[in-house]
Amino acid sequence: MAGKQPRRAFSGQGGGQDGNKTFLGEPLEVTPMPFNAVMLDTDNMRVTDTSDFTTRLLVTVQQLRREGRSSMWVRVHALNGHLLGVLGTFGFKCHHCEPESVIMNLWLQPGKENKVPPYATHLVGVAGFCQNKKGEVLLVKEGSKNLSGWKLPGGYINPGEEFGAAAVREVEEETGVRSSFEGLLALRHQHQQSFGVDDIYVVTRLQALTDELRLCSSEIQDARWVPLKQFQDEASHPILRTVAELTRGWGQGEGPVRGDIVEREHPSILPGRPPYKLYHAPLPGQ
Amino acid sequence: MAGKQPRRAFSGQGGGQDGNKTFLGEPLEVTPMPFNAVMLDTDNMRVTDTSDFTTRLLVTVQQLRREGRSSMWVRVHALNGHLLGVLGTFGFKCHHCEPESVIMNLWLQPGKENKVPPYATHLVGVAGFCQNKKGEVLLVKEGSKNLSGWKLPGGYINPGEEFGAAAVREVEEETGVRSSFEGLLALRHQHQQSFGVDDIYVVTRLQALTDELRLCSSEIQDARWVPLKQFQDEASHPILRTVAELTRGWGQGEGPVRGDIVEREHPSILPGRPPYKLYHAPLPGQ
Repeated sequence: MAGKQPRRAFSGQGGGQDGNKTFLGEPLEVTPMPFNAVMLDTDNMRVTDTSDFTTRLLVTVQQLRREGRSSMWVRVHALNGHLLGVLGTFGFKCHHCEPESVIMNLWLQPGKENKVPPYATHLVGVAGFCQNKKGEVLLVKEGSKNLSGWKLPGGYINPGEEFGAAAVREVEEETGVRSSFEGLLALRHQHQQSFGVDDIYVVTRLQALTDELRLCSSEIQDARWVPLKQFQDEASHPILRTVAELTRGWGQGEGPVRGDIVEREHPSILPGRPPYKLYHAPLPGQ
Repeated sequence: MAGKQPRRAFSGQGGGQDGNKTFLGEPLEVTPMPFNAVMLDTDNMRVTDTSDFTTRLLVTVQQLRREGRSSMWVRVHALNGHLLGVLGTFGFKCHHCEPESVIMNLWLQPGKENKVPPYATHLVGVAGFCQNKKGEVLLVKEGSKNLSGWKLPGGYINPGEEFGAAAVREVEEETGVRSSFEGLLALRHQHQQSFGVDDIYVVTRLQALTDELRLCSSEIQDARWVPLKQFQDEASHPILRTVAELTRGWGQGEGPVRGDIVEREHPSILPGRPPYKLYHAPLPGQ
């Protein structure tokens, strides 16, 4: 093990003067984690002696079980990838990964329900139902040969991004049109999409701030402004048809807010945490 | 390489009679994937000769680039974990994992934008605002010492599960109360939660089919039915307060649907795909 000096030399024979140590070797150095778990970070190790690592892992797991720890995490850099097999024989499972590391977990309390939260299960996409001052709707045609017809501009949201900000960004990237976020119109929940992942697709309502079309993205073949009446008459995809139905009352005394799911920001009840957004029907009296 | 016999022996010297082959060795066997990608599945290999694998990987990547392939996937079982380092030196990144395997990806067109979709970015939780025939609301108290006060029953949705089905299941698991799904009330979007993952929390409206409380889950310390008026007066968490505000008009001529985001099922426009759910404000005239 290079890059990190153990606090005490490996004691294959004659060690174990501490009641918590065994004659097999020194436990690996772990860091406490929330929910009574611990983390072994191997990113700064270069483990060449697998036999030594295996022995010390055994001692570590035994000690953590005695201490009543809930679970053990191990962060394995790709360069230590050979440890995945060793950890697998102990029952560790891959939980999630980063571009160059895999994070494995072992639940340490076999008699009790495994309470380790799952990793992300959903991808989230957004679309913008974007209207200009004339009430026209912005539609795009994708370059891909697999998809035909006109659709709402949109794409995946970035980690940490709000629905509205993502839709405004995607609309500008694809068409050059700048817009402001007004509310949500609809939400789709789909299952078993790319990589078997579930998918949520959020249709936002945007107000265009500019009219000029500049196709910025290599994904978009064409873009155009369509009169609302034509959009309502020609929408054929279920999502577009639903949006068209939601808009039917507009301009006849009800106004666009009729179909909106409104957004309101609330402060976190936990100190130091950022505020978050709630989406719901307009409140009574609004 | 055991477990899978290559179609032709390694030709370290003198090979390369095929124009697509080099003198270095045989390309690895890959499977075509959508979007012009290919997959190398190492689950049935037991790669012991890393040097041979590295050479053949080089030949494979060169050939795929010549063919204009978009990206190469490699599925690495934990027992072949040492390949992660080899693949890393070629520029492969971990994309996602399963309990015993890591799936890595290499984008093969350096000059073009990487179009490989991201893996899941969000966890999705649901809660049930569940009322019995008397209009009382079901609340639970969690066992964890970190959380105090009463809240709506709920939990994470399982992959493939609908919002409503997940809420009905969680309410029954936690309290023993059976219920039916009526609609959505609110949606929360939070960022940087467990493992840095973003989080969507969906509050559903449920109608209780039974009243009797049976605390089924080890997570729940207590459960009770609270009169709607008391819920409205005492709700302090922003989500509960929002739900309370949404319910204020109820029973005064408007009925519960006033605050609902309705669910409607639509058939997929792609043949053979299952139908999906859309959620939105009630349509005009409904």
